[in-house]
Amino acid sequence: MAGCARGSARAVLACLLAPVLVALLVAPARGRGGREHADWDAAKLLPPLPPREKAALVARFVTNVCDWGALATISTQEGVRGRPFADVLSLSDGPPSKGSGVPYFYLSPLQQSVGNLKENPYATLTMSLAETSFCKKYGFDPQSPLCAHTILSGTVVKVSETEVDIAKNSLFIRHPEMKSWPSSHNWFFAKLNITNIWVLDYFGGPKIVTPEEYYNVTFQ
Amino acid sequence: MAGCARGSARAVLACLLAPVLVALLVAPARGRGGREHADWDAAKLLPPLPPREKAALVARFVTNVCDWGALATISTQEGVRGRPFADVLSLSDGPPSKGSGVPYFYLSPLQQSVGNLKENPYATLTMSLAETSFCKKYGFDPQSPLCAHTILSGTVVKVSETEVDIAKNSLFIRHPEMKSWPSSHNWFFAKLNITNIWVLDYFGGPKIVTPEEYYNVTFQ
Repeated sequence: MAGCARGSARAVLACLLAPVLVALLVAPARGRGGREHADWDAAKLLPPLPPREKAALVARFVTNVCDWGALATISTQEGVRGRPFADVLSLSDGPPSKGSGVPYFYLSPLQQSVGNLKENPYATLTMSLAETSFCKKYGFDPQSPLCAHTILSGTVVKVSETEVDIAKNSLFIRHPEMKSWPSSHNWFFAKLNITNIWVLDYFGGPKIVTPEEYYNVTFQ
Repeated sequence: MAGCARGSARAVLACLLAPVLVALLVAPARGRGGREHADWDAAKLLPPLPPREKAALVARFVTNVCDWGALATISTQEGVRGRPFADVLSLSDGPPSKGSGVPYFYLSPLQQSVGNLKENPYATLTMSLAETSFCKKYGFDPQSPLCAHTILSGTVVKVSETEVDIAKNSLFIRHPEMKSWPSSHNWFFAKLNITNIWVLDYFGGPKIVTPEEYYNVTFQ
């Protein structure tokens, strides 16, 4: 702060405050609920979208930056049995920029969707960049393909013993609150075994990506 | 800026900059894509959540503050016929704080979901406060019931001629980009005729709200 001592009281105060104000402006929103979720929104550190024509890369990007999605299942509930049902689930494929592409879930038999999956494990997961700051930042409507979203169909299965640690690490790093969820809910780790992938990231309709292309993606 | 002129160059610069930095810190994110969508996030003007025990009020609140959701339908697509499908759709029940509760959509026959609905109009829409700044602000995980979300089941139907203007006004005020979507896509206005509502806004499981309770809500 050399050079601040000379001048009027206002000038001295401003000279001392200015670096603080700049620091506040650029600092991520720690402690405001965002950082704990390794939340890029608050930190404004969302990595750039991959080239839109690289649909498999875009699909992996969306899976990694989203920490929740909507899951469609066939309902087993009274009055709506056999009809399509949708619910919100937290998910994670790993730490930011280090995702495996596998959407892991932390589920309880008490959840409506889980009751449905017990009878019929087919499900479709959809995730959208509308969940992040991306679409608002560029002024893309949530239904515009430019506000990229993906649709992953497959089956939801409980992860095997050998995969529990990976699932747990992937989820707890992005969703630390999960560590304190009550054990009476009998939480278990699950994942979506993907059979079909559609990517809507540009005009011209959905792009089909195979699971093989999706998992063969290598990030820089 | 009286009083800034005296002192070292550093002090003068800081004195001039300080008010600017403060202004930047406190100003809402205007012009960054948010305002156009009557977006409360950018303006930080999200109204307070109604009391959580008033489930019908909470349901109406979620419908009004969200401008997109995920819709589950039964797939008619090759390879996944009969399985549950999920997609992202923009929606609106009216202007901010003046919603009717009716989720209106702007759909095209080119959309996968619309192809599904032609064969089977049953659908479930889910919307979450995770789409807004609410959950991050309070540090609620997207799967926590405290990060309130709703599930509305019913049928998606094209709106009647008499309802087109209401649907159009509701949608275009929240989604002005829609006005310029290409007519070659044969856009039409639709809505969800709601038969079942579940509200997850607190511990203890989903609360059931009847369509009657939902539509009878009166806001202050």
